[in-house]
Amino acid sequence: MTLEEQIRQKIDLKTKPVGALGYLETLALKIALVQQTLTPRLESPTQIVFAADHGLAKNGVSAYPPEVTHQMVMNFLAGGAAINVFCKQNGVAIHVVDAGVNFDFADHPSLIKAKAGCGTQSALYGKAITAEQLRFCLSESARIVDHIFNKGCNIIGFGEMGIGNTSSASLIMASLLSKPVEECIGRGTGVDDEQLQHKTHILKQVIDFHGSIKDPWEILQTFGGFEVAQMCGAMLQAHQNNMLIMVDGFIATAAYALVHAVEPAIAHRSIFCHVSNESAHRHFLDSLNQKAILDLNLRLGEGSGCALAYPIIQASVNFLNEMASFETAGVSNR
Amino acid sequence: MTLEEQIRQKIDLKTKPVGALGYLETLALKIALVQQTLTPRLESPTQIVFAADHGLAKNGVSAYPPEVTHQMVMNFLAGGAAINVFCKQNGVAIHVVDAGVNFDFADHPSLIKAKAGCGTQSALYGKAITAEQLRFCLSESARIVDHIFNKGCNIIGFGEMGIGNTSSASLIMASLLSKPVEECIGRGTGVDDEQLQHKTHILKQVIDFHGSIKDPWEILQTFGGFEVAQMCGAMLQAHQNNMLIMVDGFIATAAYALVHAVEPAIAHRSIFCHVSNESAHRHFLDSLNQKAILDLNLRLGEGSGCALAYPIIQASVNFLNEMASFETAGVSNR
Repeated sequence: MTLEEQIRQKIDLKTKPVGALGYLETLALKIALVQQTLTPRLESPTQIVFAADHGLAKNGVSAYPPEVTHQMVMNFLAGGAAINVFCKQNGVAIHVVDAGVNFDFADHPSLIKAKAGCGTQSALYGKAITAEQLRFCLSESARIVDHIFNKGCNIIGFGEMGIGNTSSASLIMASLLSKPVEECIGRGTGVDDEQLQHKTHILKQVIDFHGSIKDPWEILQTFGGFEVAQMCGAMLQAHQNNMLIMVDGFIATAAYALVHAVEPAIAHRSIFCHVSNESAHRHFLDSLNQKAILDLNLRLGEGSGCALAYPIIQASVNFLNEMASFETAGVSNR
Repeated sequence: MTLEEQIRQKIDLKTKPVGALGYLETLALKIALVQQTLTPRLESPTQIVFAADHGLAKNGVSAYPPEVTHQMVMNFLAGGAAINVFCKQNGVAIHVVDAGVNFDFADHPSLIKAKAGCGTQSALYGKAITAEQLRFCLSESARIVDHIFNKGCNIIGFGEMGIGNTSSASLIMASLLSKPVEECIGRGTGVDDEQLQHKTHILKQVIDFHGSIKDPWEILQTFGGFEVAQMCGAMLQAHQNNMLIMVDGFIATAAYALVHAVEPAIAHRSIFCHVSNESAHRHFLDSLNQKAILDLNLRLGEGSGCALAYPIIQASVNFLNEMASFETAGVSNR
């Protein structure tokens, strides 16, 4: 028997009807295959939140002012944000990365400084990121993931904070899928109808300015942001380290989709934690042929979907390791 | 401001866009309203698994033989079942109730003996439960819940084990909703096409024999089982104690629907933990106007959906209690 056949048999001989644990069985198989073992373990689960500012935010694409990015970073460091609460509850470590916030932070034990700039340029007038900034983002974030990996982490989630970053994600989605950008736009943090119309108008202008772009790294460089670029570098490195990758919401999915375009094998190590209320996210996941664990109308980012889905991922590993089999429990099989 | 307005304001002033925590916000509001406080707490979460045998199981409605009921009870007591693993992971206490298994169990610290009989009668030839057995089930399970409540539990989930009990649930659903029984039947533990045809044939015979029944307690007495009846008594008592009630899958929903028919206010205290892969469950929830937390294609019963959803419920309480507000965190609101 191949290892996959052995894992499937182990799942099927647990004291439950075949398939009765549904998506947990899919997850257990996936995790066991990544770790190439019948007894997988989740070690030192970690969440990284990448934060950065966006040139486009000055063009009125968000319901919130740009300074909320640095204010929320301060909130992460003080432990007051949703991601702090959920990580604490579920035993997930959290690190915050300044990937390019327009603010000068004091040193803090939970803050990793990897600033590519003080916010991207507006994609309305040119590329959001320079080639050098892109290289910096990819290598810095890879270094950060390596450091965490070397401390024993084998499952890592990526979240983001950046006022204006659903716009980057919409532009990335539209380019990767060759879709009209208006089909890739949602309300982000909650723009009203008028603001949504304005956001759509601005993003169409951006697309018109740049034309069709096909190369994933050029898409990333054109539309930003620094936190999306660092999520890409981090995901690629986690993939190379054979870590399990927890993908959060719409913006994290945009980063994943870019990496997936250059390294399709990342799909084997990736777990999609939730489908968000950002309207384009469901289509984006469908286009990637992925199903998410949770569907709770979340639209927060920060990696909150990863932290909330983590106990389900843990449960899939636990049933595989801890449940009795029909034979050991003395239960009659069909 | 009313308490409800105060709770909504507290949720809206947390450092997140309004509504961005989606269904967690709905849960937080519900729990705070049940406990009539801005700072709700989940205390001593507990899961009760009611087990019983079914007369109909001898008529070939299940993929598994009837002795699996008592074998699985032994497995629960030994800690080897899925519900044990998930409760242990998520800090949920577990009790197993012999509500009427066709087996004589030795004493065990996790086993509560409340046997209404050694399995129900087959509903093919008469009522599954006698009037006296029904009274016993309702009062015994109420007593069990009271005992747990008096030890400090304020959130309780109910699960079941009983080979043949999806048939009881289908018959209850069909009667309560006045639907053709074939629209209320699923594959249970996993019957194949031929067995499904047989199961449908048997359940139609049962419905033909008894005709239309409208009274919820008469429906329960007619179709059983003992574990369904004890879930009903337990839910009613939990409601009267103002406890939060976690509803599991298809069979637990059938018990809930019966109680709801006599005591609609139970809806305020009930949290629907998952929508199962048992095909009629989604319709059943829709008919009750309820949305579930998880949708993971589970179809195991045992209360496994409750144990898996518990961290999400906990997260809804935690964000309400622990997240910073815009004001305390110094974050600009829109």
